[in-house]
Amino acid sequence: MKIDLVLVGKSDQKYLQEGIDIYLKRLKHYCQFEMKVIPDLKSTKSLSEEQQKEKEGELIMNQIKDSDFVILLDERGESLSSVDFAQLIEKRQVAGTRKISFVIGGPYGFSKEAYAKANAKLSLSAMTFSHQMVRLLFIEQLYRAFTIINGEPYHHK
Amino acid sequence: MKIDLVLVGKSDQKYLQEGIDIYLKRLKHYCQFEMKVIPDLKSTKSLSEEQQKEKEGELIMNQIKDSDFVILLDERGESLSSVDFAQLIEKRQVAGTRKISFVIGGPYGFSKEAYAKANAKLSLSAMTFSHQMVRLLFIEQLYRAFTIINGEPYHHK
Repeated sequence: MKIDLVLVGKSDQKYLQEGIDIYLKRLKHYCQFEMKVIPDLKSTKSLSEEQQKEKEGELIMNQIKDSDFVILLDERGESLSSVDFAQLIEKRQVAGTRKISFVIGGPYGFSKEAYAKANAKLSLSAMTFSHQMVRLLFIEQLYRAFTIINGEPYHHK
Repeated sequence: MKIDLVLVGKSDQKYLQEGIDIYLKRLKHYCQFEMKVIPDLKSTKSLSEEQQKEKEGELIMNQIKDSDFVILLDERGESLSSVDFAQLIEKRQVAGTRKISFVIGGPYGFSKEAYAKANAKLSLSAMTFSHQMVRLLFIEQLYRAFTIINGEPYHHK
């Protein structure tokens, strides 16, 4: 199964990119994982918040195929334990899903089209973390999920 | 108001320490913040899980004064939004609390004494993150809380 993480804006903090790289390397043993980075439109000052959201939403949707199982990382999404998150992924594997596309929105959230396409919405925490930090959190959880699926000891560390 | 973060084991991942250092520097503008690190007992192989928990619990309690407002970061704790977390801290400021001690337990959780002393229990996420990563998450939330209390723009980034 392929897993994509679609997100807006490059990682601009070196320490976070270092952490992400550690987990990228580890994830290779478990799945075909790819981070798809959409350029940040923040610098486009001529766009309103709504226009930026729509434009980013369009670019996000371009990265997603109709057959993808789409999960938005959204603060209004469902809270899952790490074990439940692992089960969600395992269920898709068993169901023969070709690709799960996780999406982290831009600073203003998701477009209507992204919500309409979503198969599920997931909240990593009731708290708000920076969009940059969420990447590290997510990728650690994805790695943790595969260690849980494979009965490996990482989860109880 | 002073704020302590009591935790078990040194930060052993460089990239996380770098992130923590960034927020330590920023937090200086808002409060007297101190990280109190208790040595990791993992290497003490002669101790059972229960013994380790008790011993670590003892060392944690040594760092806490009777007058402290103690908040355990515990997976069975309450989930708060970042704004609610900021209000919790502001409330302690207003109440004249001298010191809040946040505590991150060791790999086996908290001792009975720690639970008995706790004024509140807080869960950062329904998901389990590594004990090392939780430090970065916590310190970012603490910084975010002070920017919320002070009406500064960080939170909406």
